[in-house]
Amino acid sequence: MSELLTHSIIDAGRWIDAQGWCPATGGNFSARIDSSTAWVTASGRHKGALTPDDLIKVDFDGQVIDSALTPSAETLLHTALYALDDNIGAVLHTHSVTSTVLSRMVAADYLTLSGYEMQKSLSGNHTHNEQIGIRILENTQDMRALAQQLTSTWARTPLQWGFLVRGHGLYAWGRDMKEARRHIEGLEFLFACEREMMLLKK
Amino acid sequence: MSELLTHSIIDAGRWIDAQGWCPATGGNFSARIDSSTAWVTASGRHKGALTPDDLIKVDFDGQVIDSALTPSAETLLHTALYALDDNIGAVLHTHSVTSTVLSRMVAADYLTLSGYEMQKSLSGNHTHNEQIGIRILENTQDMRALAQQLTSTWARTPLQWGFLVRGHGLYAWGRDMKEARRHIEGLEFLFACEREMMLLKK
Amino acid sequence: MSELLTHSIIDAGRWIDAQGWCPATGGNFSARIDSSTAWVTASGRHKGALTPDDLIKVDFDGQVIDSALTPSAETLLHTALYALDDNIGAVLHTHSVTSTVLSRMVAADYLTLSGYEMQKSLSGNHTHNEQIGIRILENTQDMRALAQQLTSTWARTPLQWGFLVRGHGLYAWGRDMKEARRHIEGLEFLFACEREMMLLKK
Amino acid sequence: MSELLTHSIIDAGRWIDAQGWCPATGGNFSARIDSSTAWVTASGRHKGALTPDDLIKVDFDGQVIDSALTPSAETLLHTALYALDDNIGAVLHTHSVTSTVLSRMVAADYLTLSGYEMQKSLSGNHTHNEQIGIRILENTQDMRALAQQLTSTWARTPLQWGFLVRGHGLYAWGRDMKEARRHIEGLEFLFACEREMMLLKK
Repeated sequence: MSELLTHSIIDAGRWIDAQGWCPATGGNFSARIDSSTAWVTASGRHKGALTPDDLIKVDFDGQVIDSALTPSAETLLHTALYALDDNIGAVLHTHSVTSTVLSRMVAADYLTLSGYEMQKSLSGNHTHNEQIGIRILENTQDMRALAQQLTSTWARTPLQWGFLVRGHGLYAWGRDMKEARRHIEGLEFLFACEREMMLLKK
Repeated sequence: MSELLTHSIIDAGRWIDAQGWCPATGGNFSARIDSSTAWVTASGRHKGALTPDDLIKVDFDGQVIDSALTPSAETLLHTALYALDDNIGAVLHTHSVTSTVLSRMVAADYLTLSGYEMQKSLSGNHTHNEQIGIRILENTQDMRALAQQLTSTWARTPLQWGFLVRGHGLYAWGRDMKEARRHIEGLEFLFACEREMMLLKK
Repeated sequence: MSELLTHSIIDAGRWIDAQGWCPATGGNFSARIDSSTAWVTASGRHKGALTPDDLIKVDFDGQVIDSALTPSAETLLHTALYALDDNIGAVLHTHSVTSTVLSRMVAADYLTLSGYEMQKSLSGNHTHNEQIGIRILENTQDMRALAQQLTSTWARTPLQWGFLVRGHGLYAWGRDMKEARRHIEGLEFLFACEREMMLLKK
Repeated sequence: MSELLTHSIIDAGRWIDAQGWCPATGGNFSARIDSSTAWVTASGRHKGALTPDDLIKVDFDGQVIDSALTPSAETLLHTALYALDDNIGAVLHTHSVTSTVLSRMVAADYLTLSGYEMQKSLSGNHTHNEQIGIRILENTQDMRALAQQLTSTWARTPLQWGFLVRGHGLYAWGRDMKEARRHIEGLEFLFACEREMMLLKK
């Protein structure tokens, strides 16, 4: 079981790297083990060439269990998500050009999407005909502050599928790795469309 | 024979995924078996990693034959095409950024193409020097309505090669899978050119 | 020797397809055999998956030698080049989005390039500091007329490296396949840069 | 050890070619051997398909040691860097569309980057919240003049991570090949973002 989980992270990393969404050690990934622990990627590794040795067990305060490695700087965002929602089984953070740039071009707190069939790739959406909003958090190097931003946003309205961090990239999740991958792929597609619409509409 | 057909769908899926045209379980594909049945992809599968178990036999009312799986939501569009034209042997639906965005940027019922040598990749075209129109249908979650839109459009003027669904993507077909693939590849190329021309002409 | 030649065409096709420069049976390739014959690709084949059976021997009037296959429609452009210049050993015609669109956006007879280090990839250029012009021929479905356009242009000033056909793509050549590939890759790069400069300068 | 070094260059070349950053024999790479010599790529080779025979040992004046091959024209830039900073272990020069075009679109001596999380991929940066400047040198075919430009710039303020040559591409380095690759990948990502921001802001 644990091997299946770690392999699901390694495979996701290869696929995400092939899309160009985790350059230069950017991006980080995790999978929930149980109600209090998760596997998360180690800091500074290229996420397209992970091995089981690059994965660290952490608790939901981000504390490392039985490892000498340093987990990703953003580990607290992953563990905050697991703590906020029992249904989250996997979290993927991509660092793509499109999500980096789009999150800087939209001044509002939300990137609004509507009219795209692809919205249906996000669980619970059954039509292109509604507006959905993807929250944009302000980037900071203070991870406790960023996790706090996430938690207080969530307290007002629980987020669905994912959120952007401005100038930094996308976090998306799912009940399992398969759903997390579909959400990442669907959201990156929607952002690419939105970027095209912005350019063509000018 | 049936194995050749199912493999032609699986291979088309791998190639289409490699082009980035079926992200996040988007896209669906089919091949005609005989005058009343076709193989169509199951709903919710990633179309870049299909196996024979992901294919379902349906009749041209979209009714499943001998399978517990659910076919793609858009199955009725595939079967409507087989019913409308005996010469259609394979149908491919791609869900690319370019076809999604272009179909939203063009307000008219047709995307008009002219002056491209690549128009000759569409069977029956022998010159770059004519205008061709690719019909854009309005997107709806009511598949019977969408199939009806297609059928009534066809009754006025039979469509050739393919059509767009606004904000959703491209359907293209051919006498066999080889021709359907050439039409998809030719149309996606033409859309990419048209998108470039729009940007550069502004 | 002949096997080396045909394999050089097949390999070039795989590489060009991987770049996305020969979609939907677009593009065609050839290699000189001797002072009066050449191998050229058959019509209607996908150029990314050629086999030796997809290659046809032709003389420089474009007449097929010992084959039942039909050569590419543009065979006369290839053979005109071999007849015009004894130093041409291989000809590659790519059908990329960038060369298609750029050749339509430039109204003049020449696309002018200057200030790019990559100009040095074109044999005989030793600096970025000069202007070079890539001839744009008008597209026509009359291949004898197109070959005549090429020949009469050449009579005024012999062309170097390659030329564009408007809305159609790029022809480039070299003493051998290796040089032809370098010229195709260099020119496609330069066109991609020029397209970017156009967009950013607007 | 020497084999590890040469393989690190060959592997970097394959990866850089897969990104499209060394077309048409563009780009060149090197790795420091000791305090007075380095391996550098031979001139005129496609950098995506290097073999050990394509690597040449040179001293820091760019003089070839025990080889009949000609080193890359830009060898003097590589050796100047090794001479300027003992901590530089590997140097990569990419020739991408984005770095070529961006270096021509920015008239200033520096390309300024700020607000990107990816700035942290450049060693010594710990925040997105500062401005960093990437020096743009003027291109020239006189390599001694270009190396001199680099050396006199460095004498005023030592450069970090990399520099651009206008219309030519990017040089980046690291303590070892792994860090050089991270810096190339991080910088190319940042340039792609900056290019997007320019387009979207217009």
